[in-house]
Amino acid sequence: MAKQIRTIGVLTSGGDAPGMNAAIRAVVRTALGNGVKVRGIRRGYSGLLNEDIIDMTARDVSDTIQRGGTILQTARCLDMCTEEGQQKAAAICKKYEIDGLVVIGGDGSFKGARALSNLGVNTIGIPGTIDMDIACTEYTIGFDTAVNTAMEAIDKVRDTSTSHERCSVVEVMGRDAGYLALWCGIANGAEKILLPEEHDYNEEQIIQDITENRKRGKKHYIIINAEGVGDSANLARKIEEATGMETRATILGYMQRGGSPTAKDRVYASIMGAKAVQLLMEGKTNRVVGYKHGEYVDFDIDEALDMQKAIPAYQYDIAKGLSI
Amino acid sequence: MAKQIRTIGVLTSGGDAPGMNAAIRAVVRTALGNGVKVRGIRRGYSGLLNEDIIDMTARDVSDTIQRGGTILQTARCLDMCTEEGQQKAAAICKKYEIDGLVVIGGDGSFKGARALSNLGVNTIGIPGTIDMDIACTEYTIGFDTAVNTAMEAIDKVRDTSTSHERCSVVEVMGRDAGYLALWCGIANGAEKILLPEEHDYNEEQIIQDITENRKRGKKHYIIINAEGVGDSANLARKIEEATGMETRATILGYMQRGGSPTAKDRVYASIMGAKAVQLLMEGKTNRVVGYKHGEYVDFDIDEALDMQKAIPAYQYDIAKGLSI
Amino acid sequence: MAKQIRTIGVLTSGGDAPGMNAAIRAVVRTALGNGVKVRGIRRGYSGLLNEDIIDMTARDVSDTIQRGGTILQTARCLDMCTEEGQQKAAAICKKYEIDGLVVIGGDGSFKGARALSNLGVNTIGIPGTIDMDIACTEYTIGFDTAVNTAMEAIDKVRDTSTSHERCSVVEVMGRDAGYLALWCGIANGAEKILLPEEHDYNEEQIIQDITENRKRGKKHYIIINAEGVGDSANLARKIEEATGMETRATILGYMQRGGSPTAKDRVYASIMGAKAVQLLMEGKTNRVVGYKHGEYVDFDIDEALDMQKAIPAYQYDIAKGLSI
Amino acid sequence: MAKQIRTIGVLTSGGDAPGMNAAIRAVVRTALGNGVKVRGIRRGYSGLLNEDIIDMTARDVSDTIQRGGTILQTARCLDMCTEEGQQKAAAICKKYEIDGLVVIGGDGSFKGARALSNLGVNTIGIPGTIDMDIACTEYTIGFDTAVNTAMEAIDKVRDTSTSHERCSVVEVMGRDAGYLALWCGIANGAEKILLPEEHDYNEEQIIQDITENRKRGKKHYIIINAEGVGDSANLARKIEEATGMETRATILGYMQRGGSPTAKDRVYASIMGAKAVQLLMEGKTNRVVGYKHGEYVDFDIDEALDMQKAIPAYQYDIAKGLSI
Repeated sequence: MAKQIRTIGVLTSGGDAPGMNAAIRAVVRTALGNGVKVRGIRRGYSGLLNEDIIDMTARDVSDTIQRGGTILQTARCLDMCTEEGQQKAAAICKKYEIDGLVVIGGDGSFKGARALSNLGVNTIGIPGTIDMDIACTEYTIGFDTAVNTAMEAIDKVRDTSTSHERCSVVEVMGRDAGYLALWCGIANGAEKILLPEEHDYNEEQIIQDITENRKRGKKHYIIINAEGVGDSANLARKIEEATGMETRATILGYMQRGGSPTAKDRVYASIMGAKAVQLLMEGKTNRVVGYKHGEYVDFDIDEALDMQKAIPAYQYDIAKGLSI
Repeated sequence: MAKQIRTIGVLTSGGDAPGMNAAIRAVVRTALGNGVKVRGIRRGYSGLLNEDIIDMTARDVSDTIQRGGTILQTARCLDMCTEEGQQKAAAICKKYEIDGLVVIGGDGSFKGARALSNLGVNTIGIPGTIDMDIACTEYTIGFDTAVNTAMEAIDKVRDTSTSHERCSVVEVMGRDAGYLALWCGIANGAEKILLPEEHDYNEEQIIQDITENRKRGKKHYIIINAEGVGDSANLARKIEEATGMETRATILGYMQRGGSPTAKDRVYASIMGAKAVQLLMEGKTNRVVGYKHGEYVDFDIDEALDMQKAIPAYQYDIAKGLSI
Repeated sequence: MAKQIRTIGVLTSGGDAPGMNAAIRAVVRTALGNGVKVRGIRRGYSGLLNEDIIDMTARDVSDTIQRGGTILQTARCLDMCTEEGQQKAAAICKKYEIDGLVVIGGDGSFKGARALSNLGVNTIGIPGTIDMDIACTEYTIGFDTAVNTAMEAIDKVRDTSTSHERCSVVEVMGRDAGYLALWCGIANGAEKILLPEEHDYNEEQIIQDITENRKRGKKHYIIINAEGVGDSANLARKIEEATGMETRATILGYMQRGGSPTAKDRVYASIMGAKAVQLLMEGKTNRVVGYKHGEYVDFDIDEALDMQKAIPAYQYDIAKGLSI
Repeated sequence: MAKQIRTIGVLTSGGDAPGMNAAIRAVVRTALGNGVKVRGIRRGYSGLLNEDIIDMTARDVSDTIQRGGTILQTARCLDMCTEEGQQKAAAICKKYEIDGLVVIGGDGSFKGARALSNLGVNTIGIPGTIDMDIACTEYTIGFDTAVNTAMEAIDKVRDTSTSHERCSVVEVMGRDAGYLALWCGIANGAEKILLPEEHDYNEEQIIQDITENRKRGKKHYIIINAEGVGDSANLARKIEEATGMETRATILGYMQRGGSPTAKDRVYASIMGAKAVQLLMEGKTNRVVGYKHGEYVDFDIDEALDMQKAIPAYQYDIAKGLSI
């Protein structure tokens, strides 16, 4: 028979992402509405190990759905990668009567959730990262906000790029996964998108393409560079030297991680938060919530961590076709 | 053997929606990139019947992906509902050597496309409406922008509602389909969502719920009313009379139809525009592009028009559970 | 010798306005930084009479400068218009050892401040209203945010208005002062601005102007109507009947009162808040802070309430000249 | 007797700034409305020397007031600094019958206008730069938009900075004038503002202040660095090393130059554009339009270039007082 859940803990872990507050709010209110107590764990697993734990009421999450960041804060926690840390964490959960734990974060955070599940604390993961690099789900909390933030910034870069007939190299986040770069590339009508998945970074080719585009009458040229593919400042310098076209680099940086979440991030995060509590109440553990093929689903964490995700190559091809 | 397409026409029809320009741009550039000429038809079917037709180059759609509205404009056209009008439209397509036509709009617009297909003009529909009320697809161009526009406006209403401890009745668009209302309801953390699909509009119940919520300590109370469900001004007046809580109605109106499209609207519209041209080039006709179960797909228009769509009831239930 | 101030009270009164939190924050931190205690009075004068008073620390205003509304909330208070109410309010100030009181609001709120000053409580007013209708100052907290909110909404209305070649009647706030309407009129490039100050509301003239504009090739027509000048819905109906041009009314409503404040509202409100405390510390009372001729200044409240303000007629003329 | 103006030229010069299009629109429509022809000169003085000149109608500036950048584009032009270039420019003005020229730009651009005035072409300057570094005016086109753009980006940085309890070094534009940095410092509630005007850049002091702030309970720490004062990346590294607080640098870059202009930028630019034409029609030359002490004024260009502007030190002091 499924374990009856009396108290749920909730934490956010890894990099913060807009919409995490919507997920926390949904966890808190769904639990309370079903007669389950909620404890908020501050600063991720680090706070769990330090017993940085607070009781949460429905009012504590009032007026938070529209806020960026995470009201529970987050932190890195190397101790949670050790068996000793994991056992301490499980013991603290028991001390605070936390029967079920919702972990909002990425793959690294889910590994901690798996460890706790093995140690008898029921756990459910919710995918939260602006990078979209979680294989089991087509949606991760924060991606939609981050891509809109980056896109709006690049729209502004484009204004000045057009006025001056410049080339602009804009670096977006996504060192290991090019979703942000691909989406901005399409949404901003960029002439070139540099993705970590493509493995074809070639400055000669970029310079040649710019030269050809100018002949076809393009007034400005925007290159979206996923962090780490090319060195934006160097690339800009080389383009200017080779083509004579004034070229500037912009690195969007940490603004991509914040901001009031978009409707999609608020709605999906709310539904995922509610679903996580429902799963705990059904006695489930070691599961991660996802959105796949148009439905909210859940997977075994082990299974989820083994999945592979590939950036859709046809979309990259479409983007190339639209930059003529 | 499939008809070889040499010239593609493109028009926007019905209510405009943010992202239509991204779709037009994708149609134009995908066609041109494949050696196919493009004619833009202005003012929808009405413009087609008036031969309001222009040649389009890749530069004509430069700097348009980020713009609201539709550069081709749109209009109502009753004549296109008549057989005579349809035959005239087909004749004009032939006169202008338009072998394939891309129609961006809603169900009504697709009926025109079907008629033209029957008369020998290959046609592909792209779903464009902020109402999301097209059954064959989980995405329609403009919905994502409209819901974010409405949500951001309601965030602002919420600020003043909280400062004054008021009740606010906010009317969003969606006379026949409550998607905008449902999403805003969840995204804005509304206390009550009035949907056309629910058929349970009950002012007594609303007033009773407000009274109970105030006892539980809610500082403000937001009701999202899908246009046409309740009369917003009357409802506000009745609530104030019955509860003594200061209540104000806001009707968001036409601002929901405009604005620079979100990343999602730009990306999906771009891919759908490219796909529509690919379908025409494969010799397809009488198809509508859709996004379903996580993939870009296409359906026979007749089939698509016969499909039924229901608002997801479980999401409505989740929204209720989160407004405690 | 000037009275030494040991405890300052702060309240927001009348309609809320974005930037009030920046002013509260500046009052709190400037006072604390100078060794003066601060009490926050919730819900305006009403809260003062109900002793809804809290001690405030520097941390209580952390993370508030970017928030719309007022964290101290606001309310109407008829009792404060009576001598009895005013004496009770002064007595409560003394009970709570409030030597100096900062009142953020409009002319009505300043009358209460004057009454309290006469009863021995030193008071300083800060102009806060989105309507700009305070004669002694060229800036009032909230106007800049409100005008940008309205303008951005009207930009969106314009998108759809252009796509459909419609006429749009957009109603903005400002029943007694047309600043919002005038600014939106210029900033949105409206064809017609209806101001309460002009006293020349003439539907025949409006209809005639639309007809002439269409002849000159204007694709759309936007009328900004200051709340109460014309009835927006009726006007829209009459225009459509008379000109045949599809016409829609949009009433922007309460969203104009909320939202994260603009830079100007945050900066000016911060400086005014700091200045209000400085004035109290100098022993001043019955003063209102203003911004005039490029400088932060202060006036006697009696003097300020007697001043008259006229909307700049030359700007209205310029607006007319630009709508050709 | 004043020279009668029959044709006005207009150009934008130097760095582009949001609101320049509103000024262009006002110049075009005010001139046309007064029976004066308008020629648009593309790409600044460089375009003038290359005779890149187009006739402009009232419709050419339709739908431009809300757009970032400059529809006339801009470019650097070293030739215009030489006497030979200036004489060629004057000759081209005469060839195109340009009696009066409106130059939208900064001090460098006004020097070109002065030279042309000396050579018999009547010229009026309009201050356009996001840096606010034009001494004769309290307002320059683009500053208000730029400061709001930067502030909104920093609000987002703050979200993630708070979630992670990080220190953030944010670099804004303004190498020679700290207005953007000062305003963002106040508007974002930054803990530290580094201005070029202060000449007191001291990394030891910054590190010491952070340490003290943390003791007072500050959860995050934001430093606004005007471009060029400190090296943002190095400073971030040093802070992290010295304090152990995770520290990240963000360089906002070229996004600060673009974007749809704010209401203030649209309104002031419109009035300044109209005023520039009025001055030309009155026969004035070698003048620059300004906004000073609450009024639109104009100065002799020589006089204007000699003026000095100092950042308001009391505002910097207030900012320090508010970051407790």
